[in-house]
Amino acid sequence: MTIAELELPTTSTATLSTGTAMKALVYHGPGERAWEDKPRPAIQDPGDAIVRITTATICGTDLHILKGDLPAVSDGRILGHEGIGVVEHVGTGVSEFHVGDKVIISCVSACLKCDFCKRGMYSHCRHGGWILGYTIDGTQAEYVRIPHADGSLYHFPADSDEDAMVMLSDILPTGFECGVLNGQVKPGDTVAIVGAGPVGLAVLLTAQFYSPAAIFMVDLDDKRLAVAKKFGATTLINSADGRAAQHVMDLTEGAGVDVAIEAVGIPATFAICQDIVAAGGRIANVGVHGKPVELHLEKLWDRNIAITTRLVDTVTTPMLLKVVRSGKLQPGQLVTHRFAMNDIMKAYDTFGNAAKEGALKVVLTNDGSR
Amino acid sequence: MTIAELELPTTSTATLSTGTAMKALVYHGPGERAWEDKPRPAIQDPGDAIVRITTATICGTDLHILKGDLPAVSDGRILGHEGIGVVEHVGTGVSEFHVGDKVIISCVSACLKCDFCKRGMYSHCRHGGWILGYTIDGTQAEYVRIPHADGSLYHFPADSDEDAMVMLSDILPTGFECGVLNGQVKPGDTVAIVGAGPVGLAVLLTAQFYSPAAIFMVDLDDKRLAVAKKFGATTLINSADGRAAQHVMDLTEGAGVDVAIEAVGIPATFAICQDIVAAGGRIANVGVHGKPVELHLEKLWDRNIAITTRLVDTVTTPMLLKVVRSGKLQPGQLVTHRFAMNDIMKAYDTFGNAAKEGALKVVLTNDGSR
Amino acid sequence: MTIAELELPTTSTATLSTGTAMKALVYHGPGERAWEDKPRPAIQDPGDAIVRITTATICGTDLHILKGDLPAVSDGRILGHEGIGVVEHVGTGVSEFHVGDKVIISCVSACLKCDFCKRGMYSHCRHGGWILGYTIDGTQAEYVRIPHADGSLYHFPADSDEDAMVMLSDILPTGFECGVLNGQVKPGDTVAIVGAGPVGLAVLLTAQFYSPAAIFMVDLDDKRLAVAKKFGATTLINSADGRAAQHVMDLTEGAGVDVAIEAVGIPATFAICQDIVAAGGRIANVGVHGKPVELHLEKLWDRNIAITTRLVDTVTTPMLLKVVRSGKLQPGQLVTHRFAMNDIMKAYDTFGNAAKEGALKVVLTNDGSR
Amino acid sequence: MTIAELELPTTSTATLSTGTAMKALVYHGPGERAWEDKPRPAIQDPGDAIVRITTATICGTDLHILKGDLPAVSDGRILGHEGIGVVEHVGTGVSEFHVGDKVIISCVSACLKCDFCKRGMYSHCRHGGWILGYTIDGTQAEYVRIPHADGSLYHFPADSDEDAMVMLSDILPTGFECGVLNGQVKPGDTVAIVGAGPVGLAVLLTAQFYSPAAIFMVDLDDKRLAVAKKFGATTLINSADGRAAQHVMDLTEGAGVDVAIEAVGIPATFAICQDIVAAGGRIANVGVHGKPVELHLEKLWDRNIAITTRLVDTVTTPMLLKVVRSGKLQPGQLVTHRFAMNDIMKAYDTFGNAAKEGALKVVLTNDGSR
Repeated sequence: MTIAELELPTTSTATLSTGTAMKALVYHGPGERAWEDKPRPAIQDPGDAIVRITTATICGTDLHILKGDLPAVSDGRILGHEGIGVVEHVGTGVSEFHVGDKVIISCVSACLKCDFCKRGMYSHCRHGGWILGYTIDGTQAEYVRIPHADGSLYHFPADSDEDAMVMLSDILPTGFECGVLNGQVKPGDTVAIVGAGPVGLAVLLTAQFYSPAAIFMVDLDDKRLAVAKKFGATTLINSADGRAAQHVMDLTEGAGVDVAIEAVGIPATFAICQDIVAAGGRIANVGVHGKPVELHLEKLWDRNIAITTRLVDTVTTPMLLKVVRSGKLQPGQLVTHRFAMNDIMKAYDTFGNAAKEGALKVVLTNDGSR
Repeated sequence: MTIAELELPTTSTATLSTGTAMKALVYHGPGERAWEDKPRPAIQDPGDAIVRITTATICGTDLHILKGDLPAVSDGRILGHEGIGVVEHVGTGVSEFHVGDKVIISCVSACLKCDFCKRGMYSHCRHGGWILGYTIDGTQAEYVRIPHADGSLYHFPADSDEDAMVMLSDILPTGFECGVLNGQVKPGDTVAIVGAGPVGLAVLLTAQFYSPAAIFMVDLDDKRLAVAKKFGATTLINSADGRAAQHVMDLTEGAGVDVAIEAVGIPATFAICQDIVAAGGRIANVGVHGKPVELHLEKLWDRNIAITTRLVDTVTTPMLLKVVRSGKLQPGQLVTHRFAMNDIMKAYDTFGNAAKEGALKVVLTNDGSR
Repeated sequence: MTIAELELPTTSTATLSTGTAMKALVYHGPGERAWEDKPRPAIQDPGDAIVRITTATICGTDLHILKGDLPAVSDGRILGHEGIGVVEHVGTGVSEFHVGDKVIISCVSACLKCDFCKRGMYSHCRHGGWILGYTIDGTQAEYVRIPHADGSLYHFPADSDEDAMVMLSDILPTGFECGVLNGQVKPGDTVAIVGAGPVGLAVLLTAQFYSPAAIFMVDLDDKRLAVAKKFGATTLINSADGRAAQHVMDLTEGAGVDVAIEAVGIPATFAICQDIVAAGGRIANVGVHGKPVELHLEKLWDRNIAITTRLVDTVTTPMLLKVVRSGKLQPGQLVTHRFAMNDIMKAYDTFGNAAKEGALKVVLTNDGSR
Repeated sequence: MTIAELELPTTSTATLSTGTAMKALVYHGPGERAWEDKPRPAIQDPGDAIVRITTATICGTDLHILKGDLPAVSDGRILGHEGIGVVEHVGTGVSEFHVGDKVIISCVSACLKCDFCKRGMYSHCRHGGWILGYTIDGTQAEYVRIPHADGSLYHFPADSDEDAMVMLSDILPTGFECGVLNGQVKPGDTVAIVGAGPVGLAVLLTAQFYSPAAIFMVDLDDKRLAVAKKFGATTLINSADGRAAQHVMDLTEGAGVDVAIEAVGIPATFAICQDIVAAGGRIANVGVHGKPVELHLEKLWDRNIAITTRLVDTVTTPMLLKVVRSGKLQPGQLVTHRFAMNDIMKAYDTFGNAAKEGALKVVLTNDGSR
């Protein structure tokens, strides 16, 4: 990191690091972040790979970290758990990836060997799980170390769209596994998605794999609802009047929905799901919750419902890759803003004002031109 | 009722009804019940059957009704939703049963024709569901009208044990469907059943269909736990010390159980289930709840669990019948007390003091000797 | 087609039956059929309904019957197992349908009460199954008696398209249940459908409920393949060169397909399915077979595959109805020819030369104008 | 057995290898085998482990190899794919096992990283699968190299029975996965197992995890049938009279069995399965077939059945371990003969005359006393 570089903020090529240092977005306690110098990561374990990042994104979870909501994140941590890049080094135990391979980085690291991984519950991997940008350094940097590379990277298909593919790092498998699969969406179903943020929209996109007859989208924000309409929602419900549940019940002639998907993470939206789930239906929780909710078992005990929770396992990533490649899913539409990696501080400003800015996914690209 | 029957010189003829009247256990508002004369039921609908009761039982739900907990039950209602008997009359639309057939009566009436029945959710049948001894007259009587007989009766297998078979009316399918099937008990699983009452024990018996490696039984009552031991529980946990969850976690080395089954119906027992469910596990609610519970989504959102509720559908009754007949399941062990139908008032007294009396299932028999 | 249709109304009223007689298409032994007078059907059983036919179609199976391939069909039998009509009479045991209701007739009659029906295997109903136009009189007539009406009819949704809805009588549930459901088509799958006749095309339409990545359509007839292309096939393979299997293997880089669906019913097409099924894949047989096939267990024993057979159960008809109504499925496209019911003899001529005529589904309408 | 065993210690130390050589059972072309010196295996790959064998067994497949039925086995190959041992060396990429760990060796080697492994189809692992004692050297030796050790070994539970645990190498998961799981055995089912050899008996033992109501065992050998009786078969059928299928149909009143499991591998036994499978039932093939069979699709196309094939994946080994440890399964009963490893040539003679010798599983132990 030279002085000249620091002095030349106008062009990205000049400001990127060289040698063994790199630039990274670093968390420094609640409210504090900086795009600053960090040492480049190195192989620590036979299963590691070092990946040079070409594309990253910012996730709502990163904002939660910045608010101080996740105390497990320590000062100095590089954030980010989504990205695409090129393999620069691999450990001796890595067999599926080679230097030069372009890869999609999964937000969940999977050793593939522990009991949870063998059951397909990578989220609870005894040696991994969600650790990137959380308990180990993440992807909002020029380089990242990926532990358990064979279970945590996916080959980037030649000729594919990076915008689409980077959605496979987290948001698409999250929406699909936690919302659609757990909700058991079936052809002909009536589905309600409560929350039209990026994850709710990922649910919306992937729910259509199973041809539900109707998808109700519930949100407070008409702009997001308009996006949902474009993405395939059949009915939009603005919940600002506090009567969303009633609207859903009216629309379903009192029956409720087969699948209610919570994609916000607060008691009020979970309450809506309880109010609208049909007898025999499913409530699939996708949102990250910070406090308990009231569960109305006195009304639900005899309704034959299931409520599910899930941290994404990313076990469906290979399948999602196939569907994205087939053109049946175009997640690149979720990208609303694009910045050079060097401008990540601005990108955070934009994403932090998502409602005002109309931001869904904000993509950071590093053209590697330095 | 033939002349020959009237001539039978036993004492029961004196107290039992004759002609078109019959004796029945009638609800007269909270706390009030009587064994009194009622008109014999008659065919009202082409799908009806009239069954002469030979065996009935009392369910915990009947006690709830007597407490006034179920306001839908009106004064004058004959209670009871479990029983065995002989078909006396059938409507023109009944095709599977004939006069003289000995039958098991299901607690759930199923029209078989509505959308819910076609999906196997008899519990939510649009023309039936749980109505017997609830919104229509029930089985604690000499005769009962069974609507939708073809979907609500099962042929009593010749040479079978009535004690065992009457458990198929409600308790066995309830324990099996709501607890074991919804809990997805699998070979090798660790299962905890919270509540060792009759339904919890029915869960215990039927969970063993799937060869779990361990079954923890949790209850406050050592007598009931001792019964559970006899019925196959591998570990007994008396929850009186308020540390049941801790005991389970210790026994599982901190992992928790694959399946936690709630068989009581109060917030405290549901809370235990939340505390002990392993990542990737299931909480199957069997208990009837009267108030909301606190759901700790802030701890469970990323645990990949499922919580299920269910009113028994009785769709597994034919399968359970096969297993009982094969001798692999001997639910007759649940019977602790036996009374003549005429003594049902005493039977209620006993069952109402179940803990003191060591009562599980109380069987009422009507030998038809009057 | 168009000129003949325009001429129809003037003659049809004159030739249709009156009083208690009706016109019907009657089988008189191999090769012999006539559009002739028959007595109108009457209620025989409490579960019966009499339906006045407004739309019927001809199925490939009807041609098999006419060839004498199904000896269970006796001389004098009215053919046809597909249709739409209006309920004219109902038996005392019918509860879900009323006089005047417009209904879709299922090819399979289901008592709903027997063990098979309770398991959802209506095809093997002990009192029904496929009997219409086979062992009892069918739908190619002015009136038809439908036994077990509550399990064999579906309400025709107001404002729906009859062409689309009559496909629910047989072809859509057949393609969906036997091909797509049994084949377990999943998002991202590679699917091959061998046979692009009406049933193969129904498989093609309904396979898309599950967003497979690729659908290969295999047939000898380029015209049918062109239709398949329009209906969503991603790759067309003309099997005339005897190298269809090789083409599929080349296209899948030697892996084979996740799902191979046999929709013809001869050894050669079943052999193709065996040659192309991937390790871990499924062969779903839809075709009606007249002779044994060679199963290459010496090659398949260690390939972890499943082979399924099925006579349609029509249990998915309610779901398919929802999807058709939602507009996600437009099966009316399968209709290539249209005749007045009175011209059914001509319709059979056309359908009997399906390849030459480019016929898929031939619809017969009875405007009831007499 | 006993006298020979008592005599063994005195000679075995003398004949066992020392230094970098070892003794091994080596294939030298059809009919030729020798217990001879071979170099000890060494780590070749970061994922390898070297295991010192303490227990091995002989599988029917080894006899097939010796007959020359598997031409992929080359002269000089050490046979054997079952065993228990102690880890002597591990490669740098092995993380789950350490030197000194006692382990169960799986017959299937799984890299855990390829697409098939990620789907749980270890049998088709792109870098493994069944290779031990087939395309690489096997376990009938003093030492064996296990590639992909983290996916191919299981920790031997302390205090467990080696006889029971070595059945987890192959026979138990094979019977369970290929027969019971693929056959979808359920409580109350009627199951027929055709073939009472070791694998058929493993099916029998593990089928009981699911509490079928009846298990028919079909074999030509009354001695094996007697063993099956002891192991839980409810009905024995000697097929010597060629009427096994007829007996099964009579016993099931013409319905056939829910699950027919083929555990032999010849056309005649597969034909029995076709004849006895009930409508809606499953045929699960376990046997290794050398030639095609005739599949009677002309009779089965409308019977709603499934036929499955499978090479064992061993994905259920962790679960089976739990069940064996819980005492619910005692596979050690399958062991009929026991030899010192040094006497493996005699052991082969005995196992090669299994019918005459009444042999099921023949266990070889190496007490390591040299």
